[in-house]
Amino acid sequence: MKFNDIKVCVFDAYGTLFDVHAAVGHHRSRLGDKADAVSAMWRTKQLEYTWLRSLMDRYVPFWQVTGEALDYAFDAHGVSDKSLRDDLLNAYMQLDCYAEVPAVLAKLKDGGMRTAILSNGSPEMLASAVTNSKLDDLLDAVLSVDDLGIFKPHPSVYQLAVDRLDVETHQVSFQSSNAWDAAAAATFGFRVAWVNRFGQAEERLPDKPDVQLRTLSELPAVVLS
Amino acid sequence: MKFNDIKVCVFDAYGTLFDVHAAVGHHRSRLGDKADAVSAMWRTKQLEYTWLRSLMDRYVPFWQVTGEALDYAFDAHGVSDKSLRDDLLNAYMQLDCYAEVPAVLAKLKDGGMRTAILSNGSPEMLASAVTNSKLDDLLDAVLSVDDLGIFKPHPSVYQLAVDRLDVETHQVSFQSSNAWDAAAAATFGFRVAWVNRFGQAEERLPDKPDVQLRTLSELPAVVLS
Repeated sequence: MKFNDIKVCVFDAYGTLFDVHAAVGHHRSRLGDKADAVSAMWRTKQLEYTWLRSLMDRYVPFWQVTGEALDYAFDAHGVSDKSLRDDLLNAYMQLDCYAEVPAVLAKLKDGGMRTAILSNGSPEMLASAVTNSKLDDLLDAVLSVDDLGIFKPHPSVYQLAVDRLDVETHQVSFQSSNAWDAAAAATFGFRVAWVNRFGQAEERLPDKPDVQLRTLSELPAVVLS
Repeated sequence: MKFNDIKVCVFDAYGTLFDVHAAVGHHRSRLGDKADAVSAMWRTKQLEYTWLRSLMDRYVPFWQVTGEALDYAFDAHGVSDKSLRDDLLNAYMQLDCYAEVPAVLAKLKDGGMRTAILSNGSPEMLASAVTNSKLDDLLDAVLSVDDLGIFKPHPSVYQLAVDRLDVETHQVSFQSSNAWDAAAAATFGFRVAWVNRFGQAEERLPDKPDVQLRTLSELPAVVLS
């Protein structure tokens, strides 16, 4: 499938450009055989807390949610190691990007496309991750929900990209590895590529993404004319 | 701990009064060693979809969400058995209540307390579950979010109980086995007992429940004077 008339490629950050499991990956030996379970629960709780706080109208920055989710995951797995907590959060501040990301962004920009991030992440988290992966010159904008005080998938988050990037909704190609984020962006009206990195099942939400990719390497062929 | 001046005991339904894993439990052999994983994912997705649809302003009744979550869980585990799907959904319509529930409700009513359900469940699901467990005469009200078109933990759901039961917020003792529901009810202003049936870790949400119970059998001592 080919998207027509796309002016901007907007990317989710965590899970899409940046590997959320890289933080635990760097300290795997200190968690032993609990490493994968802690990392998975950390991510699950982090997302749950964004949804719950949004519905409760109790927004706090993603950085706080990330720490609280880690505290829950530690607690649930019987881990209490203050220095590991600090090290994991520091690692989360500088998550590795997926291997294909720099070349994909460069190819999109070479093709005349604008590029942006639209993320739950706090501005300082996003700035740190972008700089750590040397993506600064490959992105035209880094947009955070922190300006709105509510997390994805509230429609105002997707509207933020339209407003800040000064484009029509149908001129945005939105990419996310998070199936629920991809589904909500489709409901909002973006053209949507779900980067299904882990071969997950299709969500049963009101709308489906337009295409499913294995990695972002397949994106330029979809959006560049 | 003792709650003072409580007029109504309001109960969450699914997971609190009714065992959400009883549906798979009745058909366990047909899912083999996938039974527990399918049941857990069915529940996880059911909740995720309520939060996501609420934030997306795409409410549909809990019955539809329940079917869609089961479809996802089947898909993710490579199960495709239309008659099992039907049987599981039929079983979900008539979930067993936890063993202590009838005696606890009777004791509360004997003590002069009013009792009610406040649930995400569709009215027909709640009516069926209540009748199946012979709880009709032990409940003064069965309230569904379906009248609002948004799911928990949106504050309007907890407000529905205040409005329909004609009580002050602080006169409500709210019981839930769902830690996030208990936390949100505490933020709303209810007195809250978290029925931590499975020994889960404490959520990191803005407010904490007032007490933690192992089962509802401990509730009368907390709320009856």
